[in-house]
Amino acid sequence: MDRLKEECGVFGIFDNKDSAALTALGLHALQHRGQEGCGIVSFDGKNFYSERRLGLVGDNFTKGKVLERLPGNSAIGHNRYSTMGNNLIKNIQPFFADLHTGGISIAHNGNLSNAKFLKKKLVKEGSIFQTTSDTETIVQLIAKSKRAKIVDKIIDSLFQIEGGYALTILTEKKLIGIRDPFGIRPLVIGKLKNSFVLASETCALDIIGAKFVRQVNNGEIVVITENGLESIKPFRKVKERPCIFEYIYFARPDSLIDKISVYEYRKKFGIELAKESNIDCDLIVPVPDSGVPAAIGYAEQVKSNIELGIIRNHYVGRTFIEPTQKIRSFGVKLKHSINKTLIENKSIVLIDDSLVRGTTSLKIVKMLYESGAKEVHLRVASPPIKYPDFYGVDTPNQNELLASKFSLEEIRKFLNVKTIKFLSIEGLYKSMGYAKRNKLYPEFSDHCFTGDYPVKPIDVDNKDININKDNLSSLILGS
Amino acid sequence: MDRLKEECGVFGIFDNKDSAALTALGLHALQHRGQEGCGIVSFDGKNFYSERRLGLVGDNFTKGKVLERLPGNSAIGHNRYSTMGNNLIKNIQPFFADLHTGGISIAHNGNLSNAKFLKKKLVKEGSIFQTTSDTETIVQLIAKSKRAKIVDKIIDSLFQIEGGYALTILTEKKLIGIRDPFGIRPLVIGKLKNSFVLASETCALDIIGAKFVRQVNNGEIVVITENGLESIKPFRKVKERPCIFEYIYFARPDSLIDKISVYEYRKKFGIELAKESNIDCDLIVPVPDSGVPAAIGYAEQVKSNIELGIIRNHYVGRTFIEPTQKIRSFGVKLKHSINKTLIENKSIVLIDDSLVRGTTSLKIVKMLYESGAKEVHLRVASPPIKYPDFYGVDTPNQNELLASKFSLEEIRKFLNVKTIKFLSIEGLYKSMGYAKRNKLYPEFSDHCFTGDYPVKPIDVDNKDININKDNLSSLILGS
Amino acid sequence: MDRLKEECGVFGIFDNKDSAALTALGLHALQHRGQEGCGIVSFDGKNFYSERRLGLVGDNFTKGKVLERLPGNSAIGHNRYSTMGNNLIKNIQPFFADLHTGGISIAHNGNLSNAKFLKKKLVKEGSIFQTTSDTETIVQLIAKSKRAKIVDKIIDSLFQIEGGYALTILTEKKLIGIRDPFGIRPLVIGKLKNSFVLASETCALDIIGAKFVRQVNNGEIVVITENGLESIKPFRKVKERPCIFEYIYFARPDSLIDKISVYEYRKKFGIELAKESNIDCDLIVPVPDSGVPAAIGYAEQVKSNIELGIIRNHYVGRTFIEPTQKIRSFGVKLKHSINKTLIENKSIVLIDDSLVRGTTSLKIVKMLYESGAKEVHLRVASPPIKYPDFYGVDTPNQNELLASKFSLEEIRKFLNVKTIKFLSIEGLYKSMGYAKRNKLYPEFSDHCFTGDYPVKPIDVDNKDININKDNLSSLILGS
Amino acid sequence: MDRLKEECGVFGIFDNKDSAALTALGLHALQHRGQEGCGIVSFDGKNFYSERRLGLVGDNFTKGKVLERLPGNSAIGHNRYSTMGNNLIKNIQPFFADLHTGGISIAHNGNLSNAKFLKKKLVKEGSIFQTTSDTETIVQLIAKSKRAKIVDKIIDSLFQIEGGYALTILTEKKLIGIRDPFGIRPLVIGKLKNSFVLASETCALDIIGAKFVRQVNNGEIVVITENGLESIKPFRKVKERPCIFEYIYFARPDSLIDKISVYEYRKKFGIELAKESNIDCDLIVPVPDSGVPAAIGYAEQVKSNIELGIIRNHYVGRTFIEPTQKIRSFGVKLKHSINKTLIENKSIVLIDDSLVRGTTSLKIVKMLYESGAKEVHLRVASPPIKYPDFYGVDTPNQNELLASKFSLEEIRKFLNVKTIKFLSIEGLYKSMGYAKRNKLYPEFSDHCFTGDYPVKPIDVDNKDININKDNLSSLILGS
Repeated sequence: MDRLKEECGVFGIFDNKDSAALTALGLHALQHRGQEGCGIVSFDGKNFYSERRLGLVGDNFTKGKVLERLPGNSAIGHNRYSTMGNNLIKNIQPFFADLHTGGISIAHNGNLSNAKFLKKKLVKEGSIFQTTSDTETIVQLIAKSKRAKIVDKIIDSLFQIEGGYALTILTEKKLIGIRDPFGIRPLVIGKLKNSFVLASETCALDIIGAKFVRQVNNGEIVVITENGLESIKPFRKVKERPCIFEYIYFARPDSLIDKISVYEYRKKFGIELAKESNIDCDLIVPVPDSGVPAAIGYAEQVKSNIELGIIRNHYVGRTFIEPTQKIRSFGVKLKHSINKTLIENKSIVLIDDSLVRGTTSLKIVKMLYESGAKEVHLRVASPPIKYPDFYGVDTPNQNELLASKFSLEEIRKFLNVKTIKFLSIEGLYKSMGYAKRNKLYPEFSDHCFTGDYPVKPIDVDNKDININKDNLSSLILGS
Repeated sequence: MDRLKEECGVFGIFDNKDSAALTALGLHALQHRGQEGCGIVSFDGKNFYSERRLGLVGDNFTKGKVLERLPGNSAIGHNRYSTMGNNLIKNIQPFFADLHTGGISIAHNGNLSNAKFLKKKLVKEGSIFQTTSDTETIVQLIAKSKRAKIVDKIIDSLFQIEGGYALTILTEKKLIGIRDPFGIRPLVIGKLKNSFVLASETCALDIIGAKFVRQVNNGEIVVITENGLESIKPFRKVKERPCIFEYIYFARPDSLIDKISVYEYRKKFGIELAKESNIDCDLIVPVPDSGVPAAIGYAEQVKSNIELGIIRNHYVGRTFIEPTQKIRSFGVKLKHSINKTLIENKSIVLIDDSLVRGTTSLKIVKMLYESGAKEVHLRVASPPIKYPDFYGVDTPNQNELLASKFSLEEIRKFLNVKTIKFLSIEGLYKSMGYAKRNKLYPEFSDHCFTGDYPVKPIDVDNKDININKDNLSSLILGS
Repeated sequence: MDRLKEECGVFGIFDNKDSAALTALGLHALQHRGQEGCGIVSFDGKNFYSERRLGLVGDNFTKGKVLERLPGNSAIGHNRYSTMGNNLIKNIQPFFADLHTGGISIAHNGNLSNAKFLKKKLVKEGSIFQTTSDTETIVQLIAKSKRAKIVDKIIDSLFQIEGGYALTILTEKKLIGIRDPFGIRPLVIGKLKNSFVLASETCALDIIGAKFVRQVNNGEIVVITENGLESIKPFRKVKERPCIFEYIYFARPDSLIDKISVYEYRKKFGIELAKESNIDCDLIVPVPDSGVPAAIGYAEQVKSNIELGIIRNHYVGRTFIEPTQKIRSFGVKLKHSINKTLIENKSIVLIDDSLVRGTTSLKIVKMLYESGAKEVHLRVASPPIKYPDFYGVDTPNQNELLASKFSLEEIRKFLNVKTIKFLSIEGLYKSMGYAKRNKLYPEFSDHCFTGDYPVKPIDVDNKDININKDNLSSLILGS
Repeated sequence: MDRLKEECGVFGIFDNKDSAALTALGLHALQHRGQEGCGIVSFDGKNFYSERRLGLVGDNFTKGKVLERLPGNSAIGHNRYSTMGNNLIKNIQPFFADLHTGGISIAHNGNLSNAKFLKKKLVKEGSIFQTTSDTETIVQLIAKSKRAKIVDKIIDSLFQIEGGYALTILTEKKLIGIRDPFGIRPLVIGKLKNSFVLASETCALDIIGAKFVRQVNNGEIVVITENGLESIKPFRKVKERPCIFEYIYFARPDSLIDKISVYEYRKKFGIELAKESNIDCDLIVPVPDSGVPAAIGYAEQVKSNIELGIIRNHYVGRTFIEPTQKIRSFGVKLKHSINKTLIENKSIVLIDDSLVRGTTSLKIVKMLYESGAKEVHLRVASPPIKYPDFYGVDTPNQNELLASKFSLEEIRKFLNVKTIKFLSIEGLYKSMGYAKRNKLYPEFSDHCFTGDYPVKPIDVDNKDININKDNLSSLILGS
């Protein structure tokens, strides 16, 4: 699929007799953040219990006696997004380690930008790594800390790591939630009767009927114990700068950020897009399902309606992921099909939420013309993606990003559309309610559009990537 | 799921070196017609090869060497819809039998209304049945026919069976397509270069790039050999009377029936529904995904737009089908969630394509009110379903059909909506382009709305069902 | 493995609340008769239940809830021996058919010599076969019988089939045991308190603590109902002529035939072999485990002792059945190893129970010489095998039988042994207690040694096999 | 099963293009040392490859492409013996760790007597343990060593560990074999053309056609590189004291120790046993298969022959390991059966190699009497087992050892035999060729008979075990 990928969703609940079942439901609601694997660790006052599986939550945690093998009043869970390679069960989180102060389990959404550097150092000192995950680096740092208390050990390790992260940590007495200094990755606090809940998005609170309390703030550690919630802020204070892609397409449409639903943000992107670049056509057709909210906004703005000119096959899922060469040789579109009689001889505004490699758009435009469309005009409800991410978004190499290697006109020719327009960076900020982007302290982590990275990615070899250095507002954390 | 269920999809291709791979693609496009199991039988000039699996086409026929185990230039395939019971691999089609005249393989969409009667007779004469499927009755009848030629044996058996059926049959020399005398179940003919193709819907032609030739007519047998296509019409001629539910929701939106797409029929139902029963509200919200086309039509008619007030979780699929008691006890809605900030304090027109048991609607209305909706008005884009089907649609018992046991006002109260309206039977026919329904020879098999059955269901115990007898236009076929 | 193979073991029990569990135990005791698959069918007064699995009884019928899925007071079971081909679950017995007179289930040990002929006829009349097993022919014949009662239907079918068979049949009211007219295949009757038991060998009675009552006689049908056991003898009476290989190596050493254990028969073959052909050597070494009883007899006769000069690896089992080419290329002996320091510079009498293709003997002799043996003298405790079997013993093609294609001296050279002797046919009968073999009415089915077949094998193409015609005492049964 | 259990077998090969396939064969020959799981790690000059599986070597390493996933010219392998608990794949060896000096893989046979003590210390310093295996302790110690070279790191760790161990270690440049200071666990060196081989027993050399070179000496490290084999002896020299149970029943009968086969040792135990305690009986019957060699020796001494009065079911294996309660309730003997007509009214000398809990003997004696035996006299070819082991033999708790809780007469009564005799400790040493046991420096680790432990078991809580302290020749190693 030609999409950016989120690296994971996390969940945690404290002091609830149904902790594992509620965690399974929370992970189900967060399934869009990762489909490769899922895991839950629970604690029953004596022992930790762990169940980690390849595949979907619903396929794994509803069968047989899996939940019965996860007793206890507190639990954390994790959804892992799909990557290459088989047999990766050992990389599925939450991770667990038996420290001399007791067990600790960690689930992590995000990416450390200095994990390789730290791992090399730890291995030299005798640490044995079991996984290829950067999350294990955090665990090893905690294990090696000389501090006596677990929260201090964690802070010790936070001062060494850099990047984007949202963590849920379960110890024998505590449920802990942490967001990185810029709050790049999301984490919210909810409450189900007396039980505190942590989750990547509010939709995971809704499914279990929990109330939204507030988000964990950037750079904040929340420590939940039987005495309630305590907030710790170990870092030098900086302005929040959350990942813009949560708004554009990671978060579920019904999740709330700052009191309005993500669906409404996306509709606004479509409204702004129509203001900037409307063109009169016969039909407004979204790329399903990602383009639908923006298309509804676009249609509303131009007083028209959307039409389902492209039909999505709901049975693709993980199937046909590895089609045999035979089937691939047909060049078949397994996921989308065209509503021929509808689009025949029509001019079409095609609306999608973003453009990454352009491979899907290329296929869809081709299908539309082959089915008889007269003209296709592409409107993209976000700016051109020119730079890779290093903080938890799985972007292709820079030279595969269409907007990095091509000019707007080259993209138009490549995709073979009549006209093409992206939402401008100013339009994006405007539709979010800002007069304009603050160049010194941008409101969002928007480096994929601007090249302005919040944190210097020190694991990255500089010659591999053409970072916009003039623009760099980076800050080395913990120093 | 609170939906009527289609009994299966069929596909066949003759004289093509990629027959099995193309059949897999065709079945993938027809996946919405059945998800329990799928099978392909191919013939390579010497032997028949069979692969039948539980689960989706994409999960089974793209892995490893499955397609390599299906060599040959002709193949047929089948999608089976989901029923109760485990370990049903023996019920997955195509069926195969080694007759003394050579092998024969059959894939069947539909239901025989006298299968039980015929089976009893055959068993008494020494036939051993291996499955519980009515399709085996057809195979056994063919095996027992004294006629010398295979097509005559098949006609022999057709004169004995009754009901709705679309068959694809593969023998050593022929690919055969058959529709029942009324054409209740669909079957179309396509052509891929020189290779004839048979399929339940045109979307299966599109995916392989085949051209639509024509539909198989009601009561027609098409026999495809290396000499081309021959048409045989063994039955007394009657007017076609296809199943109305193919239009309402079985067929895929991009499939064509009579030159327009099914999506467009559904939009028209929505337009007509708005004409009949519009009410001014703040938001027009479809039940996703089934209600979306009608909602777009409805919105177009009232010059408004749809809003995604209900979000569908795409990761439900077959997961959470058997949630543990623990999870069920939370009364959680795993499939739908509400866009809270959008619908808060709004009056809503909720649009769905049909109403069967009402269980899903009940949950959704409850969720909408709990999320703050001011008023919910339900609009259903088809008439009330009052009678069961016996020709290939899996309907619940009559006493579970909401519109059979309740009056309109009772339904409104049961679902707890402010107002409720169904599309009228006249409105349905009108939106299909008819001035009105032909009472003597209705244009569609619409007995679920009218009780007017095309074929007398002789396996059914009369006291089990309250059939509208005055209205009965039934005809015993083959007599 | 270079062995003849038995085709299956059967078991049945009537009127016992633990019928399925006892059947599983009985099949476990009969496991040596077939390891490919196993199945049990039970009846609880209303329904038949069937569980059929690939693999061993102990691997399949002891886990989880398999036995709980087989309720009822009567059951039959079957062990299937290993053949070629994968996915043969449909060939695993007991078979079941729903006749119009009620359900019937059949388990069969043996082979019909006219199954192909009968199948062709049945298919022409419209019977559809689901398996490639000759047992299904019996089921189809029963289903087609015009007789009213089930026992009469069965007799109808027995008059049509020919060959060697031991059947256990379960109907709604009866457990039935049948042996072919010559009693080629074995079947015994036991009693566990008030419950009648049927089994291929007495060792299956021992394991459940049942008492041995008597064998089912040749050509006898025993019908067990709640009124007890009734005996029916529908055939023209002939002298019993059981398969000699049950004595030589099919039956388990602790099974009794005619009041003495099979181990004791085998010891006697060894004693007689020593009388006929002893040679003074340093060590008497059996091929484990098949040659041990005869070797003990041989050693007793010559007042010496056996030595374990060859060690058998107990972990071969079904593993290494399909070694990769890489491993096969080493020419490794995975099953046997040599006790080097024991046999170095020693002259050895190597004792085995029989010689089929000679491939294993060839390897073992080579290993002995490579490990330093001075001389190897082979003694085989049965006569040379020259003819194939058609009644339930899986023999290789005649041209693969070492004693069919080679003279004694050629065999000696081929195996590279110093001397070689087989037990004579006279010695075989003498050690069984007969003065000599009755040429007109031989006491055993010994055609593999003599070419004297009890039943004409009509499915066999005459030119394929060099049957000793002068010697033929064949009789067409049922005529 | 009522047997002591060996903890594992190891294998390694250096500089051979078929390293993984040869390791699989070696492990197959060592399968009797462990059946729970097996693993191979190979190195191809760049990367290490690991395949670890539950179950037998032949079931796992012969299928599909497993061996192809293990490229390279050097490999080590491990068989793990069966323990409690499911999902133990992470405990299957060889273990692997990525040290900063490069990868290291370890396979271990034995048990550390101070592993718990060391683990506690390591965890406190920040080491994270992934398994419950004492072998990981060795790996962690190596990882933490400050020494620069890998052999020095290993020696560092050897000075800290105590107990019985035979290790094969694979690094990027070296294959290393190590035996503990007393040589409690076995390890031999072989050579296949130019490739050095390490294995627990010589039978693993035989299967691949390798020549036996010598054993690794007690306390010796052999380092194999492309320059050949180097020997390092880091410990203070002590006399070898190998585990006596390798002779009594762990090692395979065809393995050589000190130039004679283990089968011959066991025959000698039987000869000595007959000298010490013969009684005239009708039959000499071994408990199969463990008692057969001693019974042959016993019979030879008394000029008689063995008889197979007890038959072993070869299809038990891992099946029926967890029989359902239903089957267990029958008290059935699934593994052994009695040759009734043979033993009826006979007096019997029953011979086994050892007596642990006595549960199997109890069942067998009962079966013999129930089958009509007149008298049963038990002769055990080793001394009474009174003390547990801590160096790699899995013994039951001391209070489950029959000879620990009961006097000889009590054992006789408990087993219900007419007479009972064990081989004396003096007889054991005599049959091994020693005039008598050296009390100060015993020739073998025989503490299970004598309570004289070679190494102080410091992880063991003293009050848990009644160690014969007067007799203690223990030595704290590495100090």
